[in-house]
Amino acid sequence: MSTWGEHFRVTTYGESHCRSVGCIVDGVPPGMQLTEDDIQPQMTRRRPGQSALTTPRDEKDRVEIQSGTEFGVTLGTPIGMLVRNQDQRPKDYGGSTMDLYPRPSHADFTYLEKYGVKASSGGGRSSARETIGRVAAGAIAEKYLKLSHGVEIVCFVSSVGNEYLYPPTPEHPTASTNPEYLQLLDTITREKVDEFAPVRCPDAAASERMTKVIEHYRDNNDSIGGTVTCVIRNVPVGLGEPCFDKLEAKLGHAMLSIPATKGFEIGSGFGGCEVPGSIHNDPFTTATSSDGTQRLVTKTNNSGGIQGGISNGASIYFRVAFKPPATIGQAQTTATYDFGEGTLEAKGRHDPCVVPRAVPIVEAMSSLVIMDALMAQYARESAKNRLPPLSSTLPTKPTTAPNGV
Amino acid sequence: MSTWGEHFRVTTYGESHCRSVGCIVDGVPPGMQLTEDDIQPQMTRRRPGQSALTTPRDEKDRVEIQSGTEFGVTLGTPIGMLVRNQDQRPKDYGGSTMDLYPRPSHADFTYLEKYGVKASSGGGRSSARETIGRVAAGAIAEKYLKLSHGVEIVCFVSSVGNEYLYPPTPEHPTASTNPEYLQLLDTITREKVDEFAPVRCPDAAASERMTKVIEHYRDNNDSIGGTVTCVIRNVPVGLGEPCFDKLEAKLGHAMLSIPATKGFEIGSGFGGCEVPGSIHNDPFTTATSSDGTQRLVTKTNNSGGIQGGISNGASIYFRVAFKPPATIGQAQTTATYDFGEGTLEAKGRHDPCVVPRAVPIVEAMSSLVIMDALMAQYARESAKNRLPPLSSTLPTKPTTAPNGV
Amino acid sequence: MSTWGEHFRVTTYGESHCRSVGCIVDGVPPGMQLTEDDIQPQMTRRRPGQSALTTPRDEKDRVEIQSGTEFGVTLGTPIGMLVRNQDQRPKDYGGSTMDLYPRPSHADFTYLEKYGVKASSGGGRSSARETIGRVAAGAIAEKYLKLSHGVEIVCFVSSVGNEYLYPPTPEHPTASTNPEYLQLLDTITREKVDEFAPVRCPDAAASERMTKVIEHYRDNNDSIGGTVTCVIRNVPVGLGEPCFDKLEAKLGHAMLSIPATKGFEIGSGFGGCEVPGSIHNDPFTTATSSDGTQRLVTKTNNSGGIQGGISNGASIYFRVAFKPPATIGQAQTTATYDFGEGTLEAKGRHDPCVVPRAVPIVEAMSSLVIMDALMAQYARESAKNRLPPLSSTLPTKPTTAPNGV
Amino acid sequence: MSTWGEHFRVTTYGESHCRSVGCIVDGVPPGMQLTEDDIQPQMTRRRPGQSALTTPRDEKDRVEIQSGTEFGVTLGTPIGMLVRNQDQRPKDYGGSTMDLYPRPSHADFTYLEKYGVKASSGGGRSSARETIGRVAAGAIAEKYLKLSHGVEIVCFVSSVGNEYLYPPTPEHPTASTNPEYLQLLDTITREKVDEFAPVRCPDAAASERMTKVIEHYRDNNDSIGGTVTCVIRNVPVGLGEPCFDKLEAKLGHAMLSIPATKGFEIGSGFGGCEVPGSIHNDPFTTATSSDGTQRLVTKTNNSGGIQGGISNGASIYFRVAFKPPATIGQAQTTATYDFGEGTLEAKGRHDPCVVPRAVPIVEAMSSLVIMDALMAQYARESAKNRLPPLSSTLPTKPTTAPNGV
Repeated sequence: MSTWGEHFRVTTYGESHCRSVGCIVDGVPPGMQLTEDDIQPQMTRRRPGQSALTTPRDEKDRVEIQSGTEFGVTLGTPIGMLVRNQDQRPKDYGGSTMDLYPRPSHADFTYLEKYGVKASSGGGRSSARETIGRVAAGAIAEKYLKLSHGVEIVCFVSSVGNEYLYPPTPEHPTASTNPEYLQLLDTITREKVDEFAPVRCPDAAASERMTKVIEHYRDNNDSIGGTVTCVIRNVPVGLGEPCFDKLEAKLGHAMLSIPATKGFEIGSGFGGCEVPGSIHNDPFTTATSSDGTQRLVTKTNNSGGIQGGISNGASIYFRVAFKPPATIGQAQTTATYDFGEGTLEAKGRHDPCVVPRAVPIVEAMSSLVIMDALMAQYARESAKNRLPPLSSTLPTKPTTAPNGV
Repeated sequence: MSTWGEHFRVTTYGESHCRSVGCIVDGVPPGMQLTEDDIQPQMTRRRPGQSALTTPRDEKDRVEIQSGTEFGVTLGTPIGMLVRNQDQRPKDYGGSTMDLYPRPSHADFTYLEKYGVKASSGGGRSSARETIGRVAAGAIAEKYLKLSHGVEIVCFVSSVGNEYLYPPTPEHPTASTNPEYLQLLDTITREKVDEFAPVRCPDAAASERMTKVIEHYRDNNDSIGGTVTCVIRNVPVGLGEPCFDKLEAKLGHAMLSIPATKGFEIGSGFGGCEVPGSIHNDPFTTATSSDGTQRLVTKTNNSGGIQGGISNGASIYFRVAFKPPATIGQAQTTATYDFGEGTLEAKGRHDPCVVPRAVPIVEAMSSLVIMDALMAQYARESAKNRLPPLSSTLPTKPTTAPNGV
Repeated sequence: MSTWGEHFRVTTYGESHCRSVGCIVDGVPPGMQLTEDDIQPQMTRRRPGQSALTTPRDEKDRVEIQSGTEFGVTLGTPIGMLVRNQDQRPKDYGGSTMDLYPRPSHADFTYLEKYGVKASSGGGRSSARETIGRVAAGAIAEKYLKLSHGVEIVCFVSSVGNEYLYPPTPEHPTASTNPEYLQLLDTITREKVDEFAPVRCPDAAASERMTKVIEHYRDNNDSIGGTVTCVIRNVPVGLGEPCFDKLEAKLGHAMLSIPATKGFEIGSGFGGCEVPGSIHNDPFTTATSSDGTQRLVTKTNNSGGIQGGISNGASIYFRVAFKPPATIGQAQTTATYDFGEGTLEAKGRHDPCVVPRAVPIVEAMSSLVIMDALMAQYARESAKNRLPPLSSTLPTKPTTAPNGV
Repeated sequence: MSTWGEHFRVTTYGESHCRSVGCIVDGVPPGMQLTEDDIQPQMTRRRPGQSALTTPRDEKDRVEIQSGTEFGVTLGTPIGMLVRNQDQRPKDYGGSTMDLYPRPSHADFTYLEKYGVKASSGGGRSSARETIGRVAAGAIAEKYLKLSHGVEIVCFVSSVGNEYLYPPTPEHPTASTNPEYLQLLDTITREKVDEFAPVRCPDAAASERMTKVIEHYRDNNDSIGGTVTCVIRNVPVGLGEPCFDKLEAKLGHAMLSIPATKGFEIGSGFGGCEVPGSIHNDPFTTATSSDGTQRLVTKTNNSGGIQGGISNGASIYFRVAFKPPATIGQAQTTATYDFGEGTLEAKGRHDPCVVPRAVPIVEAMSSLVIMDALMAQYARESAKNRLPPLSSTLPTKPTTAPNGV
């Protein structure tokens, strides 16, 4: 089903050649100022045609709010949004390539098998235009999270091909043990990321290396993959549901639902498998707020801000793998629908690498996950707060612990 | 919520020190032969205490079916199952370590923050015992999948620490481009995997290297992580829902909900980001069945059996990262609940590496994902099949394609 | 949440003064011919302004399909639909009645309390325009049900005020025991119902009596309620889920979600409480199809086509109570938002009785319930059919039963 | 699916002849004192065998909490509960009545058609024992609602056959316009209801008349139906979701999912269709709390405490119709599974009227509905409260309204 979320629920519709693409966002808190101006910036960052490195079509993509606000304030009712498609005519049938071949590593074949009907665009809802509704909805969630908790979500490109911002090393098989990396995660901003357009890797040297990789594959009518790193700061402690809906599981689900993704890792990730527990564990220490109150925080953050599926207050960060785009100019020998064989060559210009444009999509899906988890926890906390206090909930003796327990 | 699945729905309950752990499985197809003997084997494979490399407790874990079958046949009604806990007494309160310290990288802290109540076991539902219900439910799904479609699900350990079965190489940054690896995925069986107990890596040399790694960390009162690879064979074409519930997204969600996981990658995964599209794409070719019918299959399988979120008939395979266990015998300096500082040392014996025991859990979650997707597709296909036929659904000319399109 | 259905899922948006109202319908079977012409007729039957007995505004209400079809065929992807609002400006604030008073028995007060924001239309989503999305979605479900199973859904007005088509009598405290009533249910058509416009009670005498009742209250600046009866014919046996989602429970839920409803009864309903079990029970008999196959049917139908929550193949029929419209021209003494007291009089013309216009809405909600239940059962049946046959599922001896068991 | 609720979620299992029946309750607020003693009383009120008027089996039905509490306090994790079945053996197959006949107006026929497998109990999950899990879960919800908001839920029998506590009259076609009835709803307690055991109609004269009706049908080997009225007091304002999940729609769904129900009406109900709007409307007036704060309340309560699907703070009350039990001692001519004809007579003693025992079940389902709606609203309110205040949410001039607007 094209629905995401239990409390803050997004339902999307639309494919490449229909009248419009859009979504309905249900569960938006009432009383928040919201206009299209809050939503358009991320739509624009997602839009293709931003540089010679990405696909040159200019689709405009102006979002139109249909319902759920009055006088620029949310009513708490569903917010309908749509973006008109420029090219609304399904392709005429004929002897075109699309009609003869299921394109390799596209969804043409699986869609036809699943639905028994061939959409003129081939892969139907697997189109990148499907993500428009997600980005629009994510912008609303993000605005709420920022207003209510100061949550900050920033994504950037962390590798293209084999060029990495922080490549694994024998000392740091995962960047999570590298304090420099954690420092970057704590300070990076979207403005900084966009300074490094079009690649969106916030480091001059790495950005240059990545640009060259992309240009190389572009010039060879080929394509290349890469990874996007996302950090979410100021997430309240306690978000995420135990068991099946752990916060990292929902984040993984959300990210792997983005077209072209092949992997997800949180905190130390795959590299963390090579780090012993004595280093990987995040011990606690005491932090003191400006008002003098104390709280527990972790000294390190290999966990990526989540323990037991529940946010611990540290920055949540993760990395998403995007495969090389399937549409390439090189000739490919493949089969036709009717079991012949032939050679397929994509015409025109194609995006040789999707990771720069994936940045706002990863941000959007992140905000949807956090928003939904936040509202689930709101319900629980409010319910708990209405109960009469228990005599004791934490059976500790309020003494400093002896050394060596 | 402790619920998984829309059509084949599992709801679990239980923590370490309550009377029992268990689950309710709703949506089980009626008319299938099923007794506890179908479920117990995977329960036993999951059980701790199978070797000196894993935690030595013997918990027995006999599953008892409560409902939903009569005379060894499923009724189609919910199947209640439970496993009694051996130690049903919550820990008495006192000056124990557990009462003083939130253990580093455990869920003690986040559970207390989330619920405001401290369970005696610390992390409550983050306990490994919570996975018992999953394994029981998975065994039912798996039996159905095997009977109805010959689906085979096999997991094995693919790395421990920095010892890999197929380490990345310059030629193969991902094992998915290595035909030897695909050959292994096509032939590996559970019996073969269990021959290599306790590590469950089906290669004598690699298994020996991994054993040494585990022994090393065990002897140093430390722990180490690793990865589990899973292959699912004979999955029908067409499973997985577009947009948010792509098949790989559900698999990722399921795997990242297993305690101690830090990453998930499907097909070429993270390594696939370094492979150009011209190699990464999976071209189609024609396969002929024994009865002479033709069908399209892919020549390679970097996609991992899924395109556009929908299964394409090739083997589905993925890899899951497990962090080093948080409980270690080494002394750790950390904070107490009341903002003191002290040194924490776990007593007794602890599991230095969880990946061998994770094997049946990954298999169980895989079967739950495939089963749910299968039933969703059953509903759609049945609905479609009741409609009058359209004049044309695939507008191709039935001719062999010309070379050079 | 503004979502209905698990398999055939409708999500709606929109209130009175926004740009458009509409819905997304997910789960539509692929390969069905569908254009706006399939949807518009019920939209038009729902439309106000059809006679002097109903509210005279002419809102047009042209539905526009946004996605999910190509060349007039469903793709299986979400179908977005919208209807533009004629009056898209939220009301300016000022000293209007709406700003001073929460209207009695409207949703103004509860919406403000729930959301803390006052929409200019008062009750926001409680507006009758919210039902547009339901009717559009229902038309799609209905087309499928008719094509695939010949399902027929017909509603009519069965009472207005105290004028009944079949009033309760001492012999028939419920019409369900009256064969004449069952005969009507078996034969009534939408065309017949619309012959009795504007009241839509398919009996000349009753229709005339009801018209007089409505005119009486209209002329007194007052309003009156009534009931709508719905019959669903040719429903396959076996629809409806045990326990919480019994078919009558879902129907009741659906009907009571329509604005202004106060009650729902299925089959014998409330009157059936007065009938002894010996009469109320529906005994079985054997029916022979035209092809000579035999099947069990019930001789009577006090159950209303559902037993144990599951359809039994007989006609499903139920009755829905609609209260008198809250907007009346008579002066009402009531409180202001700021705890003053005043007199409220609605200006203009208002609908004195909503039941005639409710007819297509009840039909739409009925089709959504049946469609969702049908797809749930499709999934189960398909799953069952893939299993190897059991030696015996019905352990009866194939003999005629002796008299007196 | 055997699941109820989104936030406070109950999943049940079990039929008549399996090991146990039970449920998992997820979403219980943490930190509430809870033991089996909080749950058993309603289990006992539900239990059969309480008098000669109800079925004489004594099933004991002791509930056992499996998980989710420690030291008598809820942890916030799922609460597993079970009740062992006394008779755990499925019936042996043979020439019994049950094997030959689908019992009229039971679920034997529809279950067999739906599942293709015949459970020995005939109707499987349509058994009254299925309601045990509901009553157990409801007791937890009810405790929370009482502790947190002082919510009171009381049900009583309002009619048996044609004997009514408040029969419709020309003056009061619905009891909702009768102040005496509203007075009863405001004051009735469970203790008072149980004083009138076994009928549970809190009026000596009516109770006596109803007893005679039941005895009459019992003595004739027949059965009779009746209605249960439920009142829910002190429900917070603002519960219930617009559109599909209006509070009355969820209540109707819940009630119609109880076995043997045929109808549901809220507030004025079916009788309210005969009352003009000028009487039916509930005007507002100002109430002053003991602390001097003012709030709006309705002068009358024909709405039944809900407007636009949202609670308005007045008492919620509704009525549920239960059909005559299908199992009767009289001979019934009906068909066998293999299309023969015969005569069926139930042996032993059977419950001639279920309404007295339905009282705690209706109470349980009521508490589940209110609890779920409360938590949904908690999430929304908490979310709203975190937003910066708007300059104006209610654009009224703070003046007393002029007379005649």
